[in-house]
Amino acid sequence: MKIEGRSYRTIWPSCGGAAVDIIDQTRLPHELVIARLETAEDAARAISTMQVRGAPLIGATAAYGMWLACLADSGDGALDGAHDRLLATRPTAINLRWALEEMRASLRNLAPESRAGAALARANAIADEDAATCEAIGGHGLELIREAAARRKGGGPVNVLTHCNAGWLAAVDWGTALAPVYKAFEAGIDIHVWVDETRPRNQGAALTAFELGHHGVAHTVIADNAGGHLMQRGEVDLVIVGTDRTAANGDVANKIGTYLKALAAHDNGVPFYVALPHATIDWTIASGADIPIEERGGEEVTHMRGRMAGGDMVEIEISAPGSPAANPAFDVTPARLVSGLITERGVCAASREGLLSLYPERADG
Amino acid sequence: MKIEGRSYRTIWPSCGGAAVDIIDQTRLPHELVIARLETAEDAARAISTMQVRGAPLIGATAAYGMWLACLADSGDGALDGAHDRLLATRPTAINLRWALEEMRASLRNLAPESRAGAALARANAIADEDAATCEAIGGHGLELIREAAARRKGGGPVNVLTHCNAGWLAAVDWGTALAPVYKAFEAGIDIHVWVDETRPRNQGAALTAFELGHHGVAHTVIADNAGGHLMQRGEVDLVIVGTDRTAANGDVANKIGTYLKALAAHDNGVPFYVALPHATIDWTIASGADIPIEERGGEEVTHMRGRMAGGDMVEIEISAPGSPAANPAFDVTPARLVSGLITERGVCAASREGLLSLYPERADG
Repeated sequence: MKIEGRSYRTIWPSCGGAAVDIIDQTRLPHELVIARLETAEDAARAISTMQVRGAPLIGATAAYGMWLACLADSGDGALDGAHDRLLATRPTAINLRWALEEMRASLRNLAPESRAGAALARANAIADEDAATCEAIGGHGLELIREAAARRKGGGPVNVLTHCNAGWLAAVDWGTALAPVYKAFEAGIDIHVWVDETRPRNQGAALTAFELGHHGVAHTVIADNAGGHLMQRGEVDLVIVGTDRTAANGDVANKIGTYLKALAAHDNGVPFYVALPHATIDWTIASGADIPIEERGGEEVTHMRGRMAGGDMVEIEISAPGSPAANPAFDVTPARLVSGLITERGVCAASREGLLSLYPERADG
Repeated sequence: MKIEGRSYRTIWPSCGGAAVDIIDQTRLPHELVIARLETAEDAARAISTMQVRGAPLIGATAAYGMWLACLADSGDGALDGAHDRLLATRPTAINLRWALEEMRASLRNLAPESRAGAALARANAIADEDAATCEAIGGHGLELIREAAARRKGGGPVNVLTHCNAGWLAAVDWGTALAPVYKAFEAGIDIHVWVDETRPRNQGAALTAFELGHHGVAHTVIADNAGGHLMQRGEVDLVIVGTDRTAANGDVANKIGTYLKALAAHDNGVPFYVALPHATIDWTIASGADIPIEERGGEEVTHMRGRMAGGDMVEIEISAPGSPAANPAFDVTPARLVSGLITERGVCAASREGLLSLYPERADG
């Protein structure tokens, strides 16, 4: 998608095949900085420090990380080490494991000297597939937005509420939850997005607002606390969020606070959809209770980075000095609160039966 | 209660009867600054800029504001002007209207030259009554905490979750929601408080954490998004919040986001209590749908104040530049989600019948 009129992806090979460039998302929205990853360790650090984040983009970065590992040493031991290092960076997003298994499967039976080329080809394919998958999600979600627009009484735009950033910055392009929004915008539907700030890392205010603003989509930033009130007032027509891991029964792990919005949507009869590519489904776990929830540092809660009036970027302490903070990064929304899952193959019920209706090849899994 | 071992109230007459001093709550938690109010306009500005906030403290400040008005001009016209100016500061907290009516009733039939003395006496009485009322709320709420402690399986503290600041900084002393916590702490009950940060003004991280920390009560700051997850994991034994206005049917308006926590408590079988003095009940409105909800400026969402590592206080922009923000300051939690109301007269069901069981004198209202 576009930043100041120029098309970007979030990640791409660079230096004539010696490195990977990324948009450093810890610097947004105030600075557009391209960071260069030259080693698998660089890729792992970019994931764990959240220079890249979002389930699909974490997967793509891990894939390119395996390629960077091959460039340095394509022996089995080195690749196993890179695999394990990358896998340990974030525990919740399942796309990470999926991408690393894809890379390992494509490299395992090759001679070491053939691996670097094959790894780049497979990582590029994963990135291209992710963009195509997200665009397909957008097409299916567009129909849900059309339906919401048709249901609206009176005038005004269709109001979509989203939590965190599941836009193109969370993927290679298009995004998951925001792909339907971009498709609706392209189709000329009058659309407005309520952007949850998404504490503690503010991915909504910093990233979702940034990408919607640069693409020209009408939006308003709100505190995470405000969404329930807006639903009570009839100011939300549908909710669309992403997910970091979907259990086989349709339970979804997503950014902390998603569960609260699902409860409010349910209480107010607002449709609540979750957009995801197939790689986000973890067929090996029966329910969301088994999804590991990452605990991040308390300083993400007690401190905040931003821009002073003069332009300087600084970090400030916002909490009472000496008070401890806890920072669970994800929560699990039970399938009973989810109106439907939007995948690249279509929209289904948030249930094992629903998922199998779209992915019948998993029925014997 | 105490700050660095010294006892404070949030507001007190000063200058030998010529002014009112307050703790400037916009400077906490990093600076303890006492501000002086010399006119009714000073008092109005202190309320609207939130140097003082919290329903009971807003009421007390308005009462002292009427006294300050008398000091300058105790004629009917001047007092009506001060009344209207103070009433217009914040639309949601009903204690403001209650205190102004109390002051007007006590001054109306006095000769102008007698009004200043009477106004100071009545304002002092309102402040003293508020402290006593809050302490009584604490005593009744203590029993709920004892019950929660008895219900707990296994070891560890009783975990109370609270939203915003309804502690002593929101009242004259003791607080509403936190009074039971202080009573439990004094009674030697092992207690721990989950402190919702409470965006956008961070009253939880800045004020609740500050006052609990200075009093020695164990607590942990969390993002507003985290409470539902903690309840799903069984880490919250009860929720206690305050309210800015309670409708006659038991619906409660409170800081934006309270409704989301009530939904999560209901979904997880966690008791959800609301603590309030009688002055917070608006017997004139049938349900929460009629409570006016204050809309504050979007810059409270997009900008944040805090302390740099060197100690300087600065304001930073945290949202994508150019993105608009909306800032509804309160939401309404329907009575069906409230386990009970804790008042100075005891605990009752959140219903008209429940309230009338404690305030039978209102039965013909």
